[in-house]
Amino acid sequence: MFPIALLTDFGSRDSFVATMKGVILSLAPKAPIIDLCHEIPPQDLRAAAFQLRTAEPYFPPASLFVCVVDPGVGSRRKIIWGENGRHQFLAPDNGLLSWLQRPIRRWRSVENKGLFLPKLSATFHGRDIFAPVAARLWLGLPPARLGPAMDRPIVLPFPKVEATAKGVRGEILYIDRFGNAITNLSHADIGDCRSVAFRGKSLGAPRSQYAQTERGRPLALFGSSGFLELSVRDSHFAKRFHARPGNRVDCR
Amino acid sequence: MFPIALLTDFGSRDSFVATMKGVILSLAPKAPIIDLCHEIPPQDLRAAAFQLRTAEPYFPPASLFVCVVDPGVGSRRKIIWGENGRHQFLAPDNGLLSWLQRPIRRWRSVENKGLFLPKLSATFHGRDIFAPVAARLWLGLPPARLGPAMDRPIVLPFPKVEATAKGVRGEILYIDRFGNAITNLSHADIGDCRSVAFRGKSLGAPRSQYAQTERGRPLALFGSSGFLELSVRDSHFAKRFHARPGNRVDCR
Amino acid sequence: MFPIALLTDFGSRDSFVATMKGVILSLAPKAPIIDLCHEIPPQDLRAAAFQLRTAEPYFPPASLFVCVVDPGVGSRRKIIWGENGRHQFLAPDNGLLSWLQRPIRRWRSVENKGLFLPKLSATFHGRDIFAPVAARLWLGLPPARLGPAMDRPIVLPFPKVEATAKGVRGEILYIDRFGNAITNLSHADIGDCRSVAFRGKSLGAPRSQYAQTERGRPLALFGSSGFLELSVRDSHFAKRFHARPGNRVDCR
Repeated sequence: MFPIALLTDFGSRDSFVATMKGVILSLAPKAPIIDLCHEIPPQDLRAAAFQLRTAEPYFPPASLFVCVVDPGVGSRRKIIWGENGRHQFLAPDNGLLSWLQRPIRRWRSVENKGLFLPKLSATFHGRDIFAPVAARLWLGLPPARLGPAMDRPIVLPFPKVEATAKGVRGEILYIDRFGNAITNLSHADIGDCRSVAFRGKSLGAPRSQYAQTERGRPLALFGSSGFLELSVRDSHFAKRFHARPGNRVDCR
Repeated sequence: MFPIALLTDFGSRDSFVATMKGVILSLAPKAPIIDLCHEIPPQDLRAAAFQLRTAEPYFPPASLFVCVVDPGVGSRRKIIWGENGRHQFLAPDNGLLSWLQRPIRRWRSVENKGLFLPKLSATFHGRDIFAPVAARLWLGLPPARLGPAMDRPIVLPFPKVEATAKGVRGEILYIDRFGNAITNLSHADIGDCRSVAFRGKSLGAPRSQYAQTERGRPLALFGSSGFLELSVRDSHFAKRFHARPGNRVDCR
Repeated sequence: MFPIALLTDFGSRDSFVATMKGVILSLAPKAPIIDLCHEIPPQDLRAAAFQLRTAEPYFPPASLFVCVVDPGVGSRRKIIWGENGRHQFLAPDNGLLSWLQRPIRRWRSVENKGLFLPKLSATFHGRDIFAPVAARLWLGLPPARLGPAMDRPIVLPFPKVEATAKGVRGEILYIDRFGNAITNLSHADIGDCRSVAFRGKSLGAPRSQYAQTERGRPLALFGSSGFLELSVRDSHFAKRFHARPGNRVDCR
């Protein structure tokens, strides 16, 4: 009874996600489906890779993650299946699975057209390919039936932490709903860092909780993703400091 | 174990949808519920009719669609049940079911107050009527118990394609999350059209996939709904060209 | 098979809610989960208390409401469990449960760390504490195992209705998706009120349905929550009249 988790950039305005669920339940009426997230900004592979990395470890064993952020839909890009010893994944071959904390160890190229809907559109492979393939995997289809094994999927490099004269420099990966700017800096990266700086402004040493800072003051702390986050207690860091993914963050 | 699919304009800000689910599960604890879409713009019957038309064919047999976009709530408008040989539907009698690809073949007026919640509000029949009636249908209530058969529900006309001197003229039905402008023009309508034009700008002949055009260039192609769509690869057609539902699209 | 209902301010942009579901289903794979609402404005306890008050009565017996609007996350604020004879609840001890129509009659402080995830973050107790505790309650854990009974949780006072020279004065509690301004004024409060006024403008006597007023005219009526609402038929009252929670409403 493992669940199928859906991660897309389809949003909630339209019926794209529901249509995928309709297809899945038409084939596998008892499959439990969880919405991982559908508000990935259109075609934003980094945001999708980050969300998947963050949420995946908390899902039940054998969960199947169906990830459809797919700027290349309708082109000759491949669709791939992978498993990392804990969960299995379907995604376009575009790097979306690159940031998993436990890397994929076996890949297949999904090519068996007998598993797809009979008529393929050029724009909605979530419905026509991903959904029916997911339903069939849930029903027990052996992954070998999907298509040939493959070795080298496309990789989306995880942003590197650089050494600087006085410490390390990372960057913002993602802005969450609360306006927290989540960086690529782990505990191990920053060691005994005394001061986190963004755009020349010092946020002091990383705190262990919001309550250590007054309301409205910016701070840095290690968030639930395991990475250093820049926040303002009870307010929106990103709006106030015009922070965006890719902006640099320094630790000294 | 067919699912109940909910289509509303209730949005996700409030607890309206959850309250409907609470009522359904209070009566039918095992009913599977799928959110078709709740972000229909308030009272936008055309958007609702379009979403239902597009998603419905992909749902499991016997699915019950509960559609609550209801500008007339609290007035004397009827609530109707229908079935099209594949699925069944509940909706206000306002044309919401008019655009189904497979038309309704039997209608009933939902009038049996014994099936409703005991106390009716003037503003939330989704909770007070639609949800308990849906739960009871799911549990096996024969549709004849809902109320009398009826013949002539209100019809929302599907926009017509007009013949022009040099070809055909359609209109935009719907703008999706990605900014694609979906028209009412089918393959059959446009035949061997050589050029699609919007506001005097030619988008060329319909393409078969996004990848045939450069990033940032507008194009026309047949989308997943089966209709011609106006798009910009990796960008937002509607914002860039100020496209809105009702705008004309010419094919020559 | 009672459901677990989730009420948070986590929004739908990120994977916070999905991560909670992953944790719940990892421990209790068959637990039905309903999204009550996740679009509570960040840290807005009044909006959360209002939504919970409004939706709760419609949920199946024994439903477990997991409410995570938690400005004090990571501080020493308590997490509490309560039951009101109909449903049970988990929430931070911040007043979120204060507005229930049927008050909580037994409380416990959730302190048994053996029920939490092994490693606690400072910022996401929804994942680390609320989700695993909810799963264990669903599986049958006796509430006495959560932690000691307690007497006096923090209370969020429900806004009072004041008597004025000519009638009563209430305030706006909540603006819903349609722009309706929901007040704290019940039928009993306003008695035979002849005229509802907002910012000096009279909306006349409360109506019993939208259809009694022309399109575009403001009106007052008793909405589905049982409170007086200020509305514009087929339009957005709050935008048009700049109404916000806390604004006064007079009845004479």
